Order: sequence, then C-alpha cells, then structure tokens
Amino acid sequence: MTQRQIGVTEVALRDAHQSLMATRMAMEDMVEACADIDAAGYWSVECWGGATFDSCIRFLNEDPWERLRTFRELMPNSRLQMLLRGQNLLGYRHYEDGVVDRFVEKSAENGMDVFRVFDALNDPRNLEHAMAAVTRTGKHAQGTICYTISPLHDVEGYVKLAGRLIDMGAQSLALKDMAALLKPQPAYDVIKAIKETYPGTQINVHCHSTTGVTLVSLMKAIEAGADVVDTAISSMSLGPGHNPTEALVEMLEGTDYTTGLDKDRLHRIRDHFAGVRPKYKEFESATLIDTDIFDSQIPGGMLSNMESQLRNQGAGDRIREVMEEVPRVRKDAGYPPLVTPSSQIVGTQAVFNVLMGRYKVMTGEFADLMLGYYGECPGERTPEVVDIARAQSKKDPIEVRPADLLEPEWDKLTEDARALEGFDGTDEDVLTNAMFPGVAPKFFETRADGPKNVGKTAAQLEAEKAAATANSQAVRGPINYDITLGGRTHSVKVEPA
Amino acid sequence: MTQRQIGVTEVALRDAHQSLMATRMAMEDMVEACADIDAAGYWSVECWGGATFDSCIRFLNEDPWERLRTFRELMPNSRLQMLLRGQNLLGYRHYEDGVVDRFVEKSAENGMDVFRVFDALNDPRNLEHAMAAVTRTGKHAQGTICYTISPLHDVEGYVKLAGRLIDMGAQSLALKDMAALLKPQPAYDVIKAIKETYPGTQINVHCHSTTGVTLVSLMKAIEAGADVVDTAISSMSLGPGHNPTEALVEMLEGTDYTTGLDKDRLHRIRDHFAGVRPKYKEFESATLIDTDIFDSQIPGGMLSNMESQLRNQGAGDRIREVMEEVPRVRKDAGYPPLVTPSSQIVGTQAVFNVLMGRYKVMTGEFADLMLGYYGECPGERTPEVVDIARAQSKKDPIEVRPADLLEPEWDKLTEDARALEGFDGTDEDVLTNAMFPGVAPKFFETRADGPKNVGKTAAQLEAEKAAATANSQAVRGPINYDITLGGRTHSVKVEPA
Repeated sequence: MTQRQIGVTEVALRDAHQSLMATRMAMEDMVEACADIDAAGYWSVECWGGATFDSCIRFLNEDPWERLRTFRELMPNSRLQMLLRGQNLLGYRHYEDGVVDRFVEKSAENGMDVFRVFDALNDPRNLEHAMAAVTRTGKHAQGTICYTISPLHDVEGYVKLAGRLIDMGAQSLALKDMAALLKPQPAYDVIKAIKETYPGTQINVHCHSTTGVTLVSLMKAIEAGADVVDTAISSMSLGPGHNPTEALVEMLEGTDYTTGLDKDRLHRIRDHFAGVRPKYKEFESATLIDTDIFDSQIPGGMLSNMESQLRNQGAGDRIREVMEEVPRVRKDAGYPPLVTPSSQIVGTQAVFNVLMGRYKVMTGEFADLMLGYYGECPGERTPEVVDIARAQSKKDPIEVRPADLLEPEWDKLTEDARALEGFDGTDEDVLTNAMFPGVAPKFFETRADGPKNVGKTAAQLEAEKAAATANSQAVRGPINYDITLGGRTHSVKVEPA
Repeated sequence: MTQRQIGVTEVALRDAHQSLMATRMAMEDMVEACADIDAAGYWSVECWGGATFDSCIRFLNEDPWERLRTFRELMPNSRLQMLLRGQNLLGYRHYEDGVVDRFVEKSAENGMDVFRVFDALNDPRNLEHAMAAVTRTGKHAQGTICYTISPLHDVEGYVKLAGRLIDMGAQSLALKDMAALLKPQPAYDVIKAIKETYPGTQINVHCHSTTGVTLVSLMKAIEAGADVVDTAISSMSLGPGHNPTEALVEMLEGTDYTTGLDKDRLHRIRDHFAGVRPKYKEFESATLIDTDIFDSQIPGGMLSNMESQLRNQGAGDRIREVMEEVPRVRKDAGYPPLVTPSSQIVGTQAVFNVLMGRYKVMTGEFADLMLGYYGECPGERTPEVVDIARAQSKKDPIEVRPADLLEPEWDKLTEDARALEGFDGTDEDVLTNAMFPGVAPKFFETRADGPKNVGKTAAQLEAEKAAATANSQAVRGPINYDITLGGRTHSVKVEPA
C-alpha cells in the first residue's frame, strides 16, 4: 500500500503561544528547539504574524525583523511561514498598495517563504494586491478562506471563494478555522468539493482545538484530500490552541496516510517546550474546552471582551441580552465571520445596543463596517442600519476596494520614521512604525537595551512553589515565631484573621 | 436521511472522577446533577465500580451500597451501569462462585442495571460465572474486551474473544481502551470485523483521552458500527479522563449519526461539575496529553509507580533501563494487557530485575502470574521463567480456572463480618468486608458519623486564592511593617531571602 504523505505545519513558534500565552514567548525560549524543528520533516514552520510582531515591540523589546532573520539562520532547511492580513499587513488599517509591496519584499528578503494571506471579511479584493506581491517575489502565496457558520455560508460559497483565490494566483489554499467551528462533516464536504472543482490544488487546514472536535475534523479533511494540516507540538497544544502534532502522527497509523515526521525530533521539541510553558503560566487562560461557541457563535476572546465592557458600565448582569443581540447585529452587517477585528466591532456594537437602545449610538468602527470601509461583507447589509451609519458618521457608503481610496504613502511614512529617536534608517523600521505607530517610537528608543523575557525564571518558579506550600500550611493553622527585638525575645502566634 | 442513533454512556459519576481526581468526589457533589443526567437521554449512566466503592469506605466514610440506592432513587429513568472485575468482583483476589452470585444479586437488588464485566488478562474463564449470575438476575450482562497492543494481539484474536463472550450470554460487548491506545484505524478494523462476524451484536466503546487521539477513534468506531460510546461531560473530561460528551454530540452533526442527547441538559450538567471540579484540584494530575505510551506501552500511572519505587531505592536515575525491561518482562509473561493489577505486577518485577539482576528476586504476585494463578495469559509464558517462579514460590503451575481451587466461603465471610463492631447484619456489609477486609472494619466503626467531603469548601478556595495573591506580591519585593511591642514601634522590612 502506498500511503499519501500529509504535510504538517508546526505552529508552536507563532499561533500556539499567541493562543495559549498571549504571544509572550521570548525568542531565547525558542532558539534551542529550532534545530529539531528544522530536521523533523515539517511542510512548513509558522513563526511570524501580526500579534508576534506587535508583542515583540510592545512587551519584549525585541526587533521582529531580527527575530525573522534568526529563524532563517536557525532553520535553513525549512519553509518559514507567516500570517498576513491582506491589505492590513500586520496592522489595523488598510495600507496603500506601495506599502504592501514594500512589506512583502522586505519579508521575503529577510527570509519568509510562505505567505498565508487572509481577510477577516473574506473579501478577495483585500487579498489581491498582497497575493500578487508575494508571487512577484517568487515566494509561496497561500490564499485563505476564513471558515464560519451563518445562513449564508455554504459549501458552494466556499468553492466559489476558492476559485477567486486560485484565479488571483494562489499556489495553495488555506481553510482557516480560527474559532474551532469546523466540524468533521463540513470539513469533509468543503474540502471534497474544492478538490473536485479544482483538482490538484494544495489545501492546508488550520484548526484551533477549543471545541474539542477538530482533530476529528482534520481526519475528515485528510480523507477528503487535504494536503497539509496545522498542529502544535503536544506541550504547546490544546485549550484555545491547536491539536497536538504527536496525536496527529499516531492518529494516521495504519491508515492510507502518513506524516513522515521524525518522532525522536518531536519528542525533543516537546521536551523543550514542556520546560518553557510553565514560565508563562500567568498568561494562560483557564479554558480547556468550550462547545458553547457552536450555539452562540461567539468566540471565547470576544465573550470575555464584552463581559469586561459590561462590567465597566456596571451592567455585568446583562451579558445574556448581549449574547442574544450579537446574532442580530451580525445579520445587520451581512454576516461577517467573527474574527479580529470584526468580532470586536460586532461585539462592542451589541453592548452599545443593549445599554443605550438599538443603534442609538454607533461606534465609528461599526459605521465603517456598515458603509463598506472594511470591504464587502458576505451578505446584504440591512438598509435602515446603513442609513443610521451614514447619518451618525456623516460618511458615504463605498463600493470600491477600500485601499483604492488611499494615496501613495511610502514617502510620508519614511519621513515619519526619520523623525524618531533610534530609527535605524532601514525600510524595515519604516514598516514597523507604519504598522504600529503607537508602539514603535518607544521601541526604537529602547531597542539598544536588548530583548527582555517576561516569563518567570526557574528561580522564581521555585520560590513561588515554596511560598505556595508554606502558605497553604499558614492558612491551615497558627504558626509560632520567636522574635527577638532589642535583646528581648517575644513569642508571637500568627493565624489567619 | 435517517440517522443512526448512537447511545452514550456518561462516566462523570464513576470513571471520570476516578481518572481525574483519585476517585475522591463525594456523593453530595453529585446529587444535584442527577435529575439532569436522568433526563438527558443517555444510554446508561456509569456510577459504580471497584475504586469508587473502595474510596467510599476508605476516604469518604460513605456506604457505597447507600450511594447506589441514592443513584437509583435520583435517576429512576436511567440504566445504571457498573464495572465489575469478573471473579475479583471489586476486590483484589478471586472469590468463590457463591460469593460472586451473592454480590451480583445484591447489586441488582440495590438498583444496578448494566454490569460491564472484565478481566485484566482477557481470560474468559474469569468472566464466565459473573456473566451467568447477571443473566440470572435478568439484568444486562456486558462482556468486555480489554484492548491492548502486542505482537500477539490482532483483529482475529479480538473477534475470537468476542465470540467467546457472546457464547457465554453477553447481551452486548464492550471494547475497553483503558490506556488510550486505540487508534482510529484499529478501532475501525476491530469493530467492523466483530460486526461482520456477529451481526446484530451491540458494541460499546470505552476510551480514555490521555493520548489525544481517541475522539477520532470513537468516530471511526461509530463508522464501523459501534452502538454506544463512553464520554464524560466536558467539565469532567480530558487529560487521563475521557472525551467530552458535548464534543461527541457536535462531532456527529451533519453525519449519518446522532446521539439525540438534550443539549440544554448537558449544559446544566456541565455547569454543575464546573463548580465542583476546583474543589478537588489537589488530587488532579498535571498530565494533559501523553503520546509516549504508544511507544513504551507503559500507562502513565504505571510509570509514576515505577519511578517512585526506584527513588525509594535511591536509583531514580535508572528509569530508562526499567522502561526497556518492561517489554521483556511482559513478553515473558505471555503479553498480558497492562492494566490493574497486571501493570503493577509487571512494572514492579521490571524494577526488581534492573536493581537485582533479571529474576534474581521474584515478587509473589509475579510468580502467581507466571504460574496461572491470575488466569491464562494471551501468549505462551517463557518456560525458564516459569521454572524460576516455581522454584522461588514453591508452588505448582495451574491450568484450571483459578476460582475452581476455592472452597465455598460465604459462611466464613459472614462469620468474619459478624465479629466486627458496627456490622449492620446485611449481606451487603458481608460483601463490603469480603472485598475490602483491610478497610471495612474501620469504616463500620465510624459509619454512623456520616459521609465526609474531602474536597475544599468555597470558603477555603477563596482564602487560598487571596493568600496566593498576597503571597505573589510578597515574593516580588520587600514589605515594610510597623510592629509595636511593649509600647515601642519598630519598623521591619521583610523580603525574600
């Protein structure tokens, strides 16, 4: 029997720590695993994206471009992969096409191989320019379908979107299930249909593990023809993260499929991160599994966000009303997938609707979404709500690709960067400041101090453990101390108040 | 499309807390969930077994028979299910057939419906009498196949064992994967083959989730024709426990199968146990996933057992040697499945072999295993090692069913129980003492004090949380105190040493 080889993308260096530990992992906690990752036989190594870039300059005083070059050097045999938010690049607004070109060129030059390009609304116009830029560099342009569930989303629609992406030069497609909503049967149906319509197209599948069912979905995806799947080494897996790489390997044993991964290398990678993960425990979420999202369609991150907004308004008890409002707001907006930033935009508007009356006050972002400034939504937007958006924002709706409205901006961005203390004169620095203008200036100033590690040290972990033990004893009963002061000894009893 | 209905056995009340929290859950933490469990639409509710019985009298001062009667009363519409270790009943030795009869009768009388009967060695002779006893009471006798991996275990062997169990009157079969070794393809192959050979036979599948792949195995088992699968409500799932019930429900959506479970009830059950689980946190293992067992064939519990034995001998650094010795010892013993008690017996002998030379010293239990006193092993035992067992133990090997060597013992057991303070005169008490003679006497004495809950109270959890916060502040930097003693105030600075 000849087995079909299933490629694996290891996400430990990017999405795994982004999902599990708020993207805080320092480069020094990754370097020692790189040789094993490089030799394990992965199809690609995901290691760069918006949140890791942001976290580098915001929390870790680390140059993200330098991180990329280090990965390139440490993993010479691997395809390095990144996640690119189309016309947004790694930032939170649309950039003019020239900036997109420059960013893609610089990323390729610094070592990036595979660009997974996506748009939160699945608007192909927001991917088109970035995809073309990647193709021009000779690197791998992967077009992405964000998977979601709504009355408008069906297999046919996903196949159509796949066609658009292939037409714009995608070398492969990614089915991206950021909310762990992809169940086994739909996984099979969507991938089977795309493969039948576009034979020979490489399909990569990215699932989170939050709902507990998506390893089964990967199995069905593979049976339907998927070529590459994303997993995280077991010591960096599960919860809001991803399915464990080793479990995928074992799952396929005896089937018509094999990963061909080197299990000894996987063990070493696992052991490395098993040692690292406890350092970042304070950043971890307690959620191990959550199947509520299938009914509410509200991802965990979005829910906690809305809860904190409500508490700040002294309305913590109204979360149920907000949860019922979310699907209505989503419908009014034409059923966007709920993923950053659309999840925050829809969630915040739902909170406003509950607290102040439906659309009495509209956020600027929600008005922009209703008026087309983020791109085209899957369905028709409710005309009355579009009118309110128009009236409140005093803006007109647009039909064009949002970036078409932008003037060339590279020269201006260069000028802005030049004015900053610590700017090193490179295009990379211009791009860093262009994408994170609120964070980059301070980073440039402090960059020379070198990276800092926000994880705990081994000594700190030990001390905490000892303190916790002592403490749990202290809580249980009184402790007697002898205290000597000015030559006299006093006996003191300490007990919980 | 007509969907095939897949039954579900909920294990939250027995195996889930046995696997996750050392079987410590008190009855009072379960009662409030029972109405929802009873109405959710499960095929059965597993709620009783050896470890829960043991824990009741050892740690919780609770009468296990009373627990059973309470379950019966609280869940009048459900099939109550128990795990019965064949001729061992719930204890650690073989019992004479009359005792087996009595135990089964009393269990049925107190409310048990489904008896899942198993033997650690898969020796059908150890199941036969218990199965017949169940059938005589009119209750459901489920014959169990313990799943394991060895050069001798193959699909054909499992089919043959299935046939034996059906011949002895099994109303259904259970494929029991206590070590999470069942991969998707073997799950499919074994169940498909049994279903083809014995059409119409009900097959239940029990998997643990330790290796992270077994939800996929349940999917494949269902595709191959499995009728009922075991899961635990999500808030009592994963790690060394079981796959989440809600994930199973969602996994099947859109397929040819459905569980028909009531999702609102599942949410309520989940919320109940989400509140209970933190109380027992100190009993939880840190293992979330472990795929090593596929290579080592050494279950997690067995490994930690061997490690602690080695440490006690000041030989903690020799675990690798022991791990390599285990497969050799298992081979010599004829490849028994590694499950309680065979896992401990094989593991301890491997430790002895490494520390003292191969079979220089044999444990009494290992000698018994080699000489047939636990029953028949799947393969031939190494004759030289049988000879050593014979010489060291001064016992002869046996070929007969071990219980055939036992004299009627009910009268003697009754007499023993009568001599105990607090004995209540019932057959149930006789059985309790018969199965746990080292624990029951003390329990009878203290029974009148009523059950105790070894979980933490809400107040304790709050206090610990507050203390941990205060403590983590204390560790980070010096704290200044003003201490007044004898009218004089001293300023004191406290900081970590």
